[in-house]
Amino acid sequence: MTTGRASRRAPGRGRRPGAPDTRADILAAARALFAARGFAGTTIRAVAGEAGVDPALVHHYFGSKADLFVASLALPVDPRAALAPVAQDGVDGAAERLLRALLTIWDDPDHRLALVATARGLLDPSGPRLFADGFLAVVIGPMGRTLGVDEPDRRMTLVASQVVGVLLLRYLLEVEPLASMPAETVVATYAPTLQHYLTDPLP
Amino acid sequence: MTTGRASRRAPGRGRRPGAPDTRADILAAARALFAARGFAGTTIRAVAGEAGVDPALVHHYFGSKADLFVASLALPVDPRAALAPVAQDGVDGAAERLLRALLTIWDDPDHRLALVATARGLLDPSGPRLFADGFLAVVIGPMGRTLGVDEPDRRMTLVASQVVGVLLLRYLLEVEPLASMPAETVVATYAPTLQHYLTDPLP
Repeated sequence: MTTGRASRRAPGRGRRPGAPDTRADILAAARALFAARGFAGTTIRAVAGEAGVDPALVHHYFGSKADLFVASLALPVDPRAALAPVAQDGVDGAAERLLRALLTIWDDPDHRLALVATARGLLDPSGPRLFADGFLAVVIGPMGRTLGVDEPDRRMTLVASQVVGVLLLRYLLEVEPLASMPAETVVATYAPTLQHYLTDPLP
Repeated sequence: MTTGRASRRAPGRGRRPGAPDTRADILAAARALFAARGFAGTTIRAVAGEAGVDPALVHHYFGSKADLFVASLALPVDPRAALAPVAQDGVDGAAERLLRALLTIWDDPDHRLALVATARGLLDPSGPRLFADGFLAVVIGPMGRTLGVDEPDRRMTLVASQVVGVLLLRYLLEVEPLASMPAETVVATYAPTLQHYLTDPLP
């Protein structure tokens, strides 16, 4: 698409700041750098340099580095907004709210294809740093801190290990009977496990 | 490799039964058919036809269809043999035995690379049927039946959803603190969850 637009520009005219392809160039640069260097190792300045624009323009379009990371994932929903209600009411019932929020997003047929594509991307060889580094830093880590649990990194990793397995088997691998299980049964099945990881003493 | 060997054969000489490339051809045919049609949809006869050999030769080399499936995964260990002790002592303590058996295999540096490669393959777009259909039929389903639990398919799917998440985060995505956690802590952390899925009432 970027190439198509560029080819329609008059030769030698140069790039207008804020043109649609500038946004796309910034996102492409961000995706490449987050994948190669991880979230912590990527700066707004480096993304701007890679895209050939001023860092202020990156901030103007995308806000913070966390916002840019979420935008670069091209998800149908912002996971921070979708999961905000999980943590803000405290740790009691947080597991059930988390599962219900996730299933509401993933069970929506309008979101499914995009989420499956993103999940496959996170699992590909360039993905580990993106997931471990960016997703934990931007989405999962803050949730653990807002919940105010002890050892938030360890507890949220245990939660993630079960949530990722459920999403993978239910939506990507479509393993029965999990794939066809009513959402409320999935919530009732896994909420005790996640609440245990959030609140019970750890070995 | 097969092509290289074939090109060194005298023209028109035909294929000797039992030549090393016959084995490789059968495995390649098996991988292609299991990936395309799943375990249930693949027959020894179809694999033989695809490889251009007699079905008896496939049986001679690889035994049953389940054996052929396991061989086609090219794993460093046969998961059926490695996991056999889990189920044969009954459901008490089965979760702990399962986790210990899996971690012993995956923590072995001689196995790690091959297992990670296979796991990535199972998650790629041609993988879902292989995993859901073949792995469940050959490895996970029989374990549930040997354990003698009620609703074995449902319980083993719940077990798989947690095991897959742990393997993914610990070994493929290398998420901390799970990636560096001592094996005994991993066993102590997840055994209660898996035992709950195996033996407690389900919602």
